[in-house]
Amino acid sequence: MILGLNLSFAVKRWMKPEVLAKMCAEDFGVEHIQFTWDLVDPWWPEDTRDLLAKSFVLAFEKEGLSIDATFAGLAAYSYPQLLAPSQEMRDISEIFLMRAVDMTVAMGVKVMGTPLGGMDYTDARDKTVREERYQTMIQSMKKLATYGKKKGLDHIEIEATPLITEFPHSPDVSLKLMHDLEGTDIPVMLLIDWGHALFKPLLKEEADISLWFEKCKNYITAIHLQQTDGLWDRHWDFTNHNGLLTPKAIVEKTKEAGLENIIQYLEVVTIFEDTDEHVYEGMKKSIALLNRAFK
Amino acid sequence: MILGLNLSFAVKRWMKPEVLAKMCAEDFGVEHIQFTWDLVDPWWPEDTRDLLAKSFVLAFEKEGLSIDATFAGLAAYSYPQLLAPSQEMRDISEIFLMRAVDMTVAMGVKVMGTPLGGMDYTDARDKTVREERYQTMIQSMKKLATYGKKKGLDHIEIEATPLITEFPHSPDVSLKLMHDLEGTDIPVMLLIDWGHALFKPLLKEEADISLWFEKCKNYITAIHLQQTDGLWDRHWDFTNHNGLLTPKAIVEKTKEAGLENIIQYLEVVTIFEDTDEHVYEGMKKSIALLNRAFK
Repeated sequence: MILGLNLSFAVKRWMKPEVLAKMCAEDFGVEHIQFTWDLVDPWWPEDTRDLLAKSFVLAFEKEGLSIDATFAGLAAYSYPQLLAPSQEMRDISEIFLMRAVDMTVAMGVKVMGTPLGGMDYTDARDKTVREERYQTMIQSMKKLATYGKKKGLDHIEIEATPLITEFPHSPDVSLKLMHDLEGTDIPVMLLIDWGHALFKPLLKEEADISLWFEKCKNYITAIHLQQTDGLWDRHWDFTNHNGLLTPKAIVEKTKEAGLENIIQYLEVVTIFEDTDEHVYEGMKKSIALLNRAFK
Repeated sequence: MILGLNLSFAVKRWMKPEVLAKMCAEDFGVEHIQFTWDLVDPWWPEDTRDLLAKSFVLAFEKEGLSIDATFAGLAAYSYPQLLAPSQEMRDISEIFLMRAVDMTVAMGVKVMGTPLGGMDYTDARDKTVREERYQTMIQSMKKLATYGKKKGLDHIEIEATPLITEFPHSPDVSLKLMHDLEGTDIPVMLLIDWGHALFKPLLKEEADISLWFEKCKNYITAIHLQQTDGLWDRHWDFTNHNGLLTPKAIVEKTKEAGLENIIQYLEVVTIFEDTDEHVYEGMKKSIALLNRAFK
């Protein structure tokens, strides 16, 4: 079992690369880092953007930690991206994702991941339009894979999300998507998030991690870890006592599926007005709990 | 009393201008609209960005509704903006806010508003650095006001937020900020949010709207309305039964302060995985409740 850490917890709190890298290495004791675009926005002017992004890589390297991948954060997720209602907005999302490839490659990082976007109310409820949105998204992802290959990316990860207005939102849709994206210029793979996979209001009896793992395991290259109650997509740390998950169960289910070599990045999304001190304590305790179980 | 509506509730749900405008006019019966940058990102390539933004203005005009202002949303708030730890990041925030002025002016809208940003953990706890961040932010806002004047903006609104790592976070800091920004090329004014002003964990006995209104009333040009429990910055709609506020108390407190002519924009921030149907019902009921009380 391999524990990793997504840097979402640090957004607007620990933005100095050296301080953050030292915290991850010395206080938390993690080795694998997934960088978030909420720390450096792919839209920022490219020269400064890449310098800022590289300063994180250097600081983490100095502490002996590896930034394995960059990943979309809350800001990118606030827009409809590749499933937007208009061609103009979908074109803009393609530009955005190409900029994210550029930034990732400039960091010397080989993997980039993102959810695909969200549909407008009326589009999502029209079977024909849903299919159109799905097909144009597939074309965009093929283009993005071609662009990624040209730039030197290794593979792209798509995150499954718990909304009927987004693709992919279920084990079957995830599997279909992976099939439809076979043969892209670099592989497009799947990231499963425990909290999304266990979201009961949408998934009902499919809110079952064993089902997700069993169906999709050939395509899963990373996992997001969070504490959740299955009622909302909580992204709690593991000190929250209202959660469904235990570190022990996480290890058991992962091993049952034979996915123990897939890195599980703890992705805690904090409440902005929570205090830095409270966030830090929660992260430290959670990672200690998880590290013990994962050993 | 004047009720307005911030479009945050529509983000990733109702993104077609005509559908959204019709909903606001016919189903909700509001007249004053505050546009959110979460629908159109100031970072987007400017030609398409401005066309998309203008399509909202035209659709709302057709329904007889006025877009009074544009305002920062969740995506912009995910970055440290003018209080970032490095000069490079603060420069990028200046560029971003100038782009937001450009978009606002292209829409024919005269008012733009935003929170100012957030400080890094170490910066926020160092008295000298806090003062430096405050002073560079003041300089940036003066520049932004000059830019706004040149472009034809009428005034800029700064939102008070409930974090000790942000400016302004209290009635006194808000008042000081307003004094320090007197004499800018266009006025820089204050937006107060009920939920931020009543956030008890930070504000304690200052979590009192009458205190905020009394101290700041000469500078308040808009208000954000939300249901909240005072424990977190909830941005609930008014169907939530755990809230502190009643439409009646809102009207009373506002009138006591003599602020009944200031528009109060309902700003509901939805949980992404909540259903469109649930969000719609909550918005419709909330606005009906508020409209009755505000009449």
